[in-house]
Amino acid sequence: MARDLTALFDPASVAVVGASDDPAKYGHAVASQALRAPGRRPVHLVNRRGGTVLGRTAATSLSAIGEPVELVVISVPGAGFEDAVDDALACGAKAIVAITAGFAEAGPAGLARQRAVADRVRAAGAVLVGPNCLGIADNTTELYLASDRFAPGGVALLSQSGNLALELQLRGEPYGLGFSRFVSLGNQADVTLVDLVEDCARHRATSAIAVYAEDFGDGRAFAAAAAAAGKPVVLLTAGRGSASARSAQSHTGALTTSADVVAAACRDAGVELVRTPREMTVVLAALATPAGGPRTAGRRRTAVFTDGGGHGAVAADAAEDAGLDVPELDAATQDRLRRVLWEQSSVGNPVDLAGMGEQRPLSYADTVGELLAAEGVDAVLMTGYFGGYAASEGGLGGGAAGGSVLAEGETRAAKEIVAHLAAVPKPLVVQSMYPRSASCRVLAEAGVPVFAATEDAARALAAMTGRAVSDPGGAVPPLPPAAAPLRDLGYHAVRALLADAGVPFPAAREVTDEAGLLAAAAEFEGPYVLKALHVLHKSDAGGVALRLADRDALLAAYRAMHGRLGAPAYSVEAMADLTDGVELIVGVNRDPRFGPVAMVGLGGVLTETLRDVAFALAPVPSGRAAGLLRSLRGAALLDGVRGRPALDVAAAAAVVERVTAVAAAHPEIAELEVNPLLVRPDGALALDARAVLD
Amino acid sequence: MARDLTALFDPASVAVVGASDDPAKYGHAVASQALRAPGRRPVHLVNRRGGTVLGRTAATSLSAIGEPVELVVISVPGAGFEDAVDDALACGAKAIVAITAGFAEAGPAGLARQRAVADRVRAAGAVLVGPNCLGIADNTTELYLASDRFAPGGVALLSQSGNLALELQLRGEPYGLGFSRFVSLGNQADVTLVDLVEDCARHRATSAIAVYAEDFGDGRAFAAAAAAAGKPVVLLTAGRGSASARSAQSHTGALTTSADVVAAACRDAGVELVRTPREMTVVLAALATPAGGPRTAGRRRTAVFTDGGGHGAVAADAAEDAGLDVPELDAATQDRLRRVLWEQSSVGNPVDLAGMGEQRPLSYADTVGELLAAEGVDAVLMTGYFGGYAASEGGLGGGAAGGSVLAEGETRAAKEIVAHLAAVPKPLVVQSMYPRSASCRVLAEAGVPVFAATEDAARALAAMTGRAVSDPGGAVPPLPPAAAPLRDLGYHAVRALLADAGVPFPAAREVTDEAGLLAAAAEFEGPYVLKALHVLHKSDAGGVALRLADRDALLAAYRAMHGRLGAPAYSVEAMADLTDGVELIVGVNRDPRFGPVAMVGLGGVLTETLRDVAFALAPVPSGRAAGLLRSLRGAALLDGVRGRPALDVAAAAAVVERVTAVAAAHPEIAELEVNPLLVRPDGALALDARAVLD
Repeated sequence: MARDLTALFDPASVAVVGASDDPAKYGHAVASQALRAPGRRPVHLVNRRGGTVLGRTAATSLSAIGEPVELVVISVPGAGFEDAVDDALACGAKAIVAITAGFAEAGPAGLARQRAVADRVRAAGAVLVGPNCLGIADNTTELYLASDRFAPGGVALLSQSGNLALELQLRGEPYGLGFSRFVSLGNQADVTLVDLVEDCARHRATSAIAVYAEDFGDGRAFAAAAAAAGKPVVLLTAGRGSASARSAQSHTGALTTSADVVAAACRDAGVELVRTPREMTVVLAALATPAGGPRTAGRRRTAVFTDGGGHGAVAADAAEDAGLDVPELDAATQDRLRRVLWEQSSVGNPVDLAGMGEQRPLSYADTVGELLAAEGVDAVLMTGYFGGYAASEGGLGGGAAGGSVLAEGETRAAKEIVAHLAAVPKPLVVQSMYPRSASCRVLAEAGVPVFAATEDAARALAAMTGRAVSDPGGAVPPLPPAAAPLRDLGYHAVRALLADAGVPFPAAREVTDEAGLLAAAAEFEGPYVLKALHVLHKSDAGGVALRLADRDALLAAYRAMHGRLGAPAYSVEAMADLTDGVELIVGVNRDPRFGPVAMVGLGGVLTETLRDVAFALAPVPSGRAAGLLRSLRGAALLDGVRGRPALDVAAAAAVVERVTAVAAAHPEIAELEVNPLLVRPDGALALDARAVLD
Repeated sequence: MARDLTALFDPASVAVVGASDDPAKYGHAVASQALRAPGRRPVHLVNRRGGTVLGRTAATSLSAIGEPVELVVISVPGAGFEDAVDDALACGAKAIVAITAGFAEAGPAGLARQRAVADRVRAAGAVLVGPNCLGIADNTTELYLASDRFAPGGVALLSQSGNLALELQLRGEPYGLGFSRFVSLGNQADVTLVDLVEDCARHRATSAIAVYAEDFGDGRAFAAAAAAAGKPVVLLTAGRGSASARSAQSHTGALTTSADVVAAACRDAGVELVRTPREMTVVLAALATPAGGPRTAGRRRTAVFTDGGGHGAVAADAAEDAGLDVPELDAATQDRLRRVLWEQSSVGNPVDLAGMGEQRPLSYADTVGELLAAEGVDAVLMTGYFGGYAASEGGLGGGAAGGSVLAEGETRAAKEIVAHLAAVPKPLVVQSMYPRSASCRVLAEAGVPVFAATEDAARALAAMTGRAVSDPGGAVPPLPPAAAPLRDLGYHAVRALLADAGVPFPAAREVTDEAGLLAAAAEFEGPYVLKALHVLHKSDAGGVALRLADRDALLAAYRAMHGRLGAPAYSVEAMADLTDGVELIVGVNRDPRFGPVAMVGLGGVLTETLRDVAFALAPVPSGRAAGLLRSLRGAALLDGVRGRPALDVAAAAAVVERVTAVAAAHPEIAELEVNPLLVRPDGALALDARAVLD
């Protein structure tokens, strides 16, 4: 299934078409980089004017090289692009990196051109990155085909922006972050983000995959590939706000997927979603270790500790802001801490050495040891002054002589912390005012992420308490085979479709005249509901009458409604008992990139005003559906506030499973919605439903 | 009114009691610092064992000095503290800095000791900082009485944590941030945070006041002092999360004020509330210029621009996350931008040079010029590569030769940007991958804040678009004189109190028997409401009966309720028409630090489950009350969703004004609440009310 990208990342030979001596041309930068590993593979420079480029004789064309070339970089003006591709394929190229711009990003004509090229490339059994890209690099095969240099390391960087990639490279430096590969995604005419994630997942030298993308292509496949990668995937994307959504449309021609959908897909796939290059670097610093670092699979009980109250309180807040829990430590752990600490130390959480670290730096190590060993502690955040003695000999509270002894003690404490961590591997992150001190370097070299900023340490720890990368990828639900497409999406057809799938509805009959109405009313007890069918926004139009006590009331309502609306048909329904019930909305929208996406929320007026909704990729199994319902801000309503009975969340979750399964099996349905879904103490009942064809 | 702190910040002479040659003692560090400005004022070292300290003869006691001392630092063990204070006062000290610990933070006995000392100090006409503090410094008077050195500059730093102060000092360095004063707050037994904010407000060399505090003392007075300071006040505090609230109680003995209250007070006072040392530095970098920087008084329309799409999209999102607006630019501005930019540049917002900056760096300046001049633009965020050419000669897309020309162009662009800014002073903030480049240094030296991280630039710009510091301090409402205290806070007494203040209620009578009930019912029309009085949680206990159609129904309900509850009294009320109404809650809680604090929110079950509430210092004028109501997440409910009529928000706001005024005038009321307040299209009606005495 997965595409073979060997010719792209480890070609036997390379040619740069458009290589130039003019430093203002990109072909100059790429050619210079390409020549950096002279012994590794033949590198040919091609310039149609010939002559010398970078001190080498340039071939006037690919065919003039006189031997096959496995990978061809094309950096020529747009008019010559197709010819260059054809030449490359004629020379036996199995991979093309297309720098040339002016295709899909320039409009429909450009899109058609790049599609045609991609078809020819695929027909020749080759692969193409770009067009409109800045090149690629693979540090593990000494392949340098982009203008930037990337320090070697474990991160595969797949980016739609050259400058953001450059920023990530600069930001990674202080953390010792390096890169296994860099791919500028460009327009993804052939090789897509998904192909690259799959290949980097198999790439043994890659320990984490970092993505900046505005255009996900097949977003569902991206999520599935990320979930199955077996290593951390970190995604930076834009388009949360209204401004960047505008920008993405006008700037890249990409359909920016809505922020809710992207967030839901990332949550389901276990992708770490970040908002800025800085946040991405912080998360990578925590996750891009060879083992991906210890992960706690969602357990987030964090012990915060410091020597000096202020930092502890600030870090505890930051930890909670990042989604970690900072519970009071259990009595046994507090007892053990009291045995190794001062009387004035605080052992609740945050733990505060209260000056003891100044006198006896090893108390830092003792504390870490106890915290790591504590059963009720999943992760540890150390914050504040640690590093100060080893950073400068004249630290707070100590002169030159004292400082030196303290510096040694601090560095010994760092080594002991590393030993404790080896014995009990749990996530440990450090915030230090002296992150480059000798003692902090001991920690960093042992793989403990050390940050200067409290919020960075908290964010990193939150990433390390995410779900384990070895979790099954099953959280991105596979789509069922498509069912026979529906033609009739009238109200009763949708109802029947959902009822067949097991969604409970009240009794109902479609009627078109008074005789039918009365016959329907005879089939079940009142009170009744009357709805006009095939009327847009029937509620607002007065096309719904509730609480019709008996057949007389039903008939009167029918006559009034029909006189007003003259609808072609009506639905007579048994009125549900609304006592003690809460109305939910359950919907599925088909996103062009991520496929069917489920939404659940509080129904009725609250949906519109409070937007208390949650999303997940559909279909949604009932267990996950219950979790979504519990994640609503108003979830307490489901537990029965103010002495009301608790509601049947399991029944509501079962309806979500069934509705989302139906939508997933019918790709022709753009929107499917049950609204309201009445949840009661003893079950759930769909009171209305609608579908919109694509 | 304000206390004279001249003896504290600019004393004629200083003595350090507890000066020591032992580097492990704090008295060593303070004495070393105190001697740093030998010519400025006499500095005496006191050690009861005499001998030499730091190469000087130490006096064995203050009186042994033989001349008056204006400021005395006391860094002795706790047992000798009171004697040292008495000696200082006997020697004529007008200011005492008390390092010694073991007072309020150690328990009630310590609190009593520090109170007694503070009384003696005040009786002698002196002032005392501490105890349990780390000292003070004033760079403008060469007064160094703390262990840390602070680079000189415009920030007055008032901190309850020594290590956090140290971190702020380290963090400020790259931004050229320096400090006018540093005060370690300690236990605030005499000189309080409020005294210090007032003094720093008057201090001409101070351009911004930075506070880290867990204990606000008189929070209301702090807010008022900050609002009246006429310069930016930035507050870092802990205690948002549950963990730090626990910590503050156990660690400092301070009553940590709830996060909602602190946030409301800061909003009202125009204080910039920050969460971490890093955020504080970012905000100070933006605001601590001599003029406090240009401020837009709440206008937040931000133009984001870059050269290269990714950074623009990411920064636009970050700007919106920080509370800025990033609207599409108006057509005239777009036209003017198109005239100076390339065809492929984007001019919507974010503005994207799309590579033009690489070829012609002055296009950065042209764009800034147009954006600053645009009427629809309040602030500008420039993001991405700018600085790259002046940072390295081999930047992206250019070799050594090209780079050099581009570097010059970039630096010229920076100078032109500074000129544009001088002509049209609006907030401009820069995020650059090369913040220390020559071109970025030109900007920074002209007062343009330059950051490496996108989110920092956005946060800084948000601070600069806050309200102008010259705004009147009236946003912290003065408390009215206390009214005669109430004794009876029974339901009908509270109702009468509020009704007298102009809060509308339905007709109601208190009754104690059937005869009274029937007499009451004869006074107004049904339907009726019957409430049992003096019953805890009357709603939950079944003590409220609604929709009693007539006198018979009322009597039946009375008999049933009285049989069940046997309440001593009942209230018979006219039932309000709930159609088209929305229920709100309006409450005032008296916070021990910030006084009466108003809360408004959606009422009923929603208050508890969705917590859609907003806070402000009480009393709240109706205009501000309307703003609070509009800030609710569910505010759309007030506008009449789904064809319902819009509600009378002005009437609701008037009730908020009256309820909060009553609460503010009655300090004996701990809680006052109207719940529900029914808001209808044609007015507002208080349906229930309660008060709790302090």
